Amino acid sequence: MSTIGITTSKILRIGAAGHEETKDLLVREEPLEIRVGYGAATQRREFPLAVTMRTPGADEELARGFLLSEGIVSHPKDILSAKYCLQAKQPENTLKVELVNDLPFEPDKFKRNFYASSSCGVCGKAALEAITCELPKHKSPSFKIKKATILGLSDQVKEHQSTFKYTGGLHAAALFDQNGALLIVREDIGRHNALDKLIGVGSMQQMDWSDKTLWLSGRLGFEMVQKPAVIGLRTIVGLGAPSSLAIDLAKEAGLTLVGFLKKDSFNIYSGIENVNLTEY
Amino acid sequence: MSTIGITTSKILRIGAAGHEETKDLLVREEPLEIRVGYGAATQRREFPLAVTMRTPGADEELARGFLLSEGIVSHPKDILSAKYCLQAKQPENTLKVELVNDLPFEPDKFKRNFYASSSCGVCGKAALEAITCELPKHKSPSFKIKKATILGLSDQVKEHQSTFKYTGGLHAAALFDQNGALLIVREDIGRHNALDKLIGVGSMQQMDWSDKTLWLSGRLGFEMVQKPAVIGLRTIVGLGAPSSLAIDLAKEAGLTLVGFLKKDSFNIYSGIENVNLTEY
Repeated sequence: MSTIGITTSKILRIGAAGHEETKDLLVREEPLEIRVGYGAATQRREFPLAVTMRTPGADEELARGFLLSEGIVSHPKDILSAKYCLQAKQPENTLKVELVNDLPFEPDKFKRNFYASSSCGVCGKAALEAITCELPKHKSPSFKIKKATILGLSDQVKEHQSTFKYTGGLHAAALFDQNGALLIVREDIGRHNALDKLIGVGSMQQMDWSDKTLWLSGRLGFEMVQKPAVIGLRTIVGLGAPSSLAIDLAKEAGLTLVGFLKKDSFNIYSGIENVNLTEY
Repeated sequence: MSTIGITTSKILRIGAAGHEETKDLLVREEPLEIRVGYGAATQRREFPLAVTMRTPGADEELARGFLLSEGIVSHPKDILSAKYCLQAKQPENTLKVELVNDLPFEPDKFKRNFYASSSCGVCGKAALEAITCELPKHKSPSFKIKKATILGLSDQVKEHQSTFKYTGGLHAAALFDQNGALLIVREDIGRHNALDKLIGVGSMQQMDWSDKTLWLSGRLGFEMVQKPAVIGLRTIVGLGAPSSLAIDLAKEAGLTLVGFLKKDSFNIYSGIENVNLTEY
């Protein structure tokens, strides 16, 4: 299998014995726009079907699979071809699927009023620009988080995470104050929902987010960094791996981003200057 | 914390020593529709903003957090109230957020042509009915999968999963034949993308899905069972926990659904009759 989905980033790896600057391999994450070509041979039309955040590579397969698994076409033969749009702004992130001539396809069926997440852009850079424009003005971080504080977060969440204990099927988001005291925990089957619930609770309490630390149970994809950035959170710590786009956003917005938090180690991907490594 | 997000299901737990019928605690998963009330005091209007698959509980918090974290409102005070719609078909799955009078809100900004997944319904039952109507006619399972075959799947994937090894940040989907031989593996930062890629590859090979086994690295939410069901896969095995709605769908569609696959144990949530427990 190719390694087209991988990139590298300079990080600071913090362990029990100390810390070292090193390079980390990351999953690439970029949006893919899927367009559909349909209609009679003499009158072809185009419809923008979906945008999905994906790891680049196997894009034709992804688009074909999406149309089949979502029931948009019912047979592989309904698809004539799936090719990058060379005339698109970001050809490598835009794929057009041509349906066979005269295949019934009703765009109206797929027009919904529902909100499409702001992470949906036509390329990672565009999405990044769009979102960083909307970010609140950077506040200087009002505190430095201690190494010991970061290492102590997960144990506190485990004590409070009720549903996961029983079912093993939930994501969690938790909020901590400067001293590492747990303020809020919320759980959901979707990691973005757990985070939105936490933000909802905090908003009802007029939370000042800027000096709080967000802890996340899962991987740190673009949206999991974008949402906290939008409301003004400055410090994000996760158990999983960040994506390349999530790190770009964290750096752009001046956030502190920590990943792969384990019992006695973690990686800093952005905002090293806001972590106090000496004081334990 | 309440246990509103939990339900139970009868399952067959398979271990090294044998198997036992037992009850398992599951995460509930149902769609929540978020509506927005806006406009002048004398002329209030309503807009269907989003549908998200969530674990019920803390719905007001979820809706408030969603509007803030997606930048739809910029301050908690922009939201007047967030309440269940008593006049909706499924009041417990429909929440209306009232914005303060005259707050600028442009629905057109959120009208996108992009496809909303077919798992988006106004209630779990409605979504379930909608999708099971579209499912291909049930084929009788053409084979019984052996216990030893199921227990041998993960090791084969590990040997082939390239990107995860390096980054720790990817989901994988894999396809196996009746004898447990690995046919396809695909990876992506999104679990649904990994699955769509696999379905895309198979479709280009004119795959007969009905006697194949699908292996998934993550949790088994509704969409992760719906997508394979739509294309005619009959056997799904995952490392994580299924949601309540995923099990409902598997039972409705007559699929074999295995979760919590470990080194020498797994749980059967649906289709026990299609697993050969005696032959090792």
